[in-house]
Amino acid sequence: MRVAYLGPPGTFSEEAVSRCDLTQGGEALPYSTFADAYDALLSRAVDAALLPIENSIEGAVSTVLDLLVLKPGPRIRREVLLPVRQHLLARPGTRLEDVRRVLSHPQPFGQCARFLRERLPQAALESQTSTAEAARKVAAGESAAAAIGSRAAADRYGLALLAESIQDSDENVTRFVLLAPSDEAPTGADRTSIAFTLDRDRPGGLHEVLGEFARRGINLSKIESRPTKRTMGHYVFYLDFEGHRAEPACAEALACVLGRVHTLWLLGSYPRAT
Amino acid sequence: MRVAYLGPPGTFSEEAVSRCDLTQGGEALPYSTFADAYDALLSRAVDAALLPIENSIEGAVSTVLDLLVLKPGPRIRREVLLPVRQHLLARPGTRLEDVRRVLSHPQPFGQCARFLRERLPQAALESQTSTAEAARKVAAGESAAAAIGSRAAADRYGLALLAESIQDSDENVTRFVLLAPSDEAPTGADRTSIAFTLDRDRPGGLHEVLGEFARRGINLSKIESRPTKRTMGHYVFYLDFEGHRAEPACAEALACVLGRVHTLWLLGSYPRAT
Repeated sequence: MRVAYLGPPGTFSEEAVSRCDLTQGGEALPYSTFADAYDALLSRAVDAALLPIENSIEGAVSTVLDLLVLKPGPRIRREVLLPVRQHLLARPGTRLEDVRRVLSHPQPFGQCARFLRERLPQAALESQTSTAEAARKVAAGESAAAAIGSRAAADRYGLALLAESIQDSDENVTRFVLLAPSDEAPTGADRTSIAFTLDRDRPGGLHEVLGEFARRGINLSKIESRPTKRTMGHYVFYLDFEGHRAEPACAEALACVLGRVHTLWLLGSYPRAT
Repeated sequence: MRVAYLGPPGTFSEEAVSRCDLTQGGEALPYSTFADAYDALLSRAVDAALLPIENSIEGAVSTVLDLLVLKPGPRIRREVLLPVRQHLLARPGTRLEDVRRVLSHPQPFGQCARFLRERLPQAALESQTSTAEAARKVAAGESAAAAIGSRAAADRYGLALLAESIQDSDENVTRFVLLAPSDEAPTGADRTSIAFTLDRDRPGGLHEVLGEFARRGINLSKIESRPTKRTMGHYVFYLDFEGHRAEPACAEALACVLGRVHTLWLLGSYPRAT
């Protein structure tokens, strides 16, 4: 099984792939953006793609949420919860007061906002395609620069840890999903993810949808909203609930929700991570 | 009246201040970050702060949503809807193929993601505190660089428009709110914003809250969720509804919602922008 992930090696995505039992005997293939990894799955260049969808500090990984409804088709087959420790990485000998530029993926800038504001207020933040790519560039000799990334990236690119565990909260977890052509069969402890839009100007539309789950005692584990990229006030809702779409109560709820929404995307049913 | 906004001059925030009738005879004071503008209001260095809270393409301005619940107190007194056109700005004579670095605020990077991916795939994205600050730096001579920002910023800093209207959708609107020590009296066409957290592990909690509005025929105009920065799956919900908190139906709904949530923040009642 070939699994696409956000490379180069040394990213949190690579660490998440290694925790994903599906890849035993498999091959992990690095791609330079989330969209490239997703497209590789769509074109069947790979069998699966492991992508982050939310972080406990910074929230939704909006690029990935957008892909799921703009280019629908792939289903979630697994979820992986990865505890994340962000460190400030620099070439050995660099001092904190020398750092004028910080390179990282935009997500860690958000996860480490307080550290950056208080300890490096004068540093420019330069967005890179991944934390490991940032580390690679710093190692390659970018001047007065540091990267935010993992200990694995420091080890791989020969960087020192200039400051450790710099995220805003110790409870920093990123949730990844393994996307594949089909989702998973019921295991008895599953989760289902859907996305939907509502007809506009229908007061109570979201309340009606949530009611289909509430009246059947189905626990919602997440609700997020994203703009549709069309008109202010028009949203795509992303909803996770406990249970498998093949279970009778969940199937009934989904059938009723279908009648209440404008468009529904089934993102998949898969075993709940603990 | 002194109004804090994200400077330097030439930002979309400055343009939004100029559309805000409250500042007639007032003074607009630039601050270098959203948090600095917010803190200036908290410390009473200014009378109000005008900050963006959502964009129709890129979604929530998460820094500002976070401030409203992490440092509560200020109330929304006005909302301003500003149509946004993003342009690629560079020193006269620069060609698109020369651009190796793009400077802007993180929000426009998201609003212009498609243009950047298709037309400038090799350019590094460097986060700046504002679009106007990015334009100022490009004008000051950053090499092989362009800024994403407004026509006003191009005019002010003597830059040319290398590419016009580069946002992903023509329907690009940013919603600003004017924060002040108190909100506004009823006008008959108002909106109210609240934020709340739910007790954990209470299935149907969000459904119950939305039901208080639905059963009174109160139209919800927005619902967003943000992580609480503590535990995965624990959210702050931001909800806007039509009506003023002093109207009987809205007051009743709010009183009932108070009994169903963990914490409720009143963000304010204010005239609806059209």
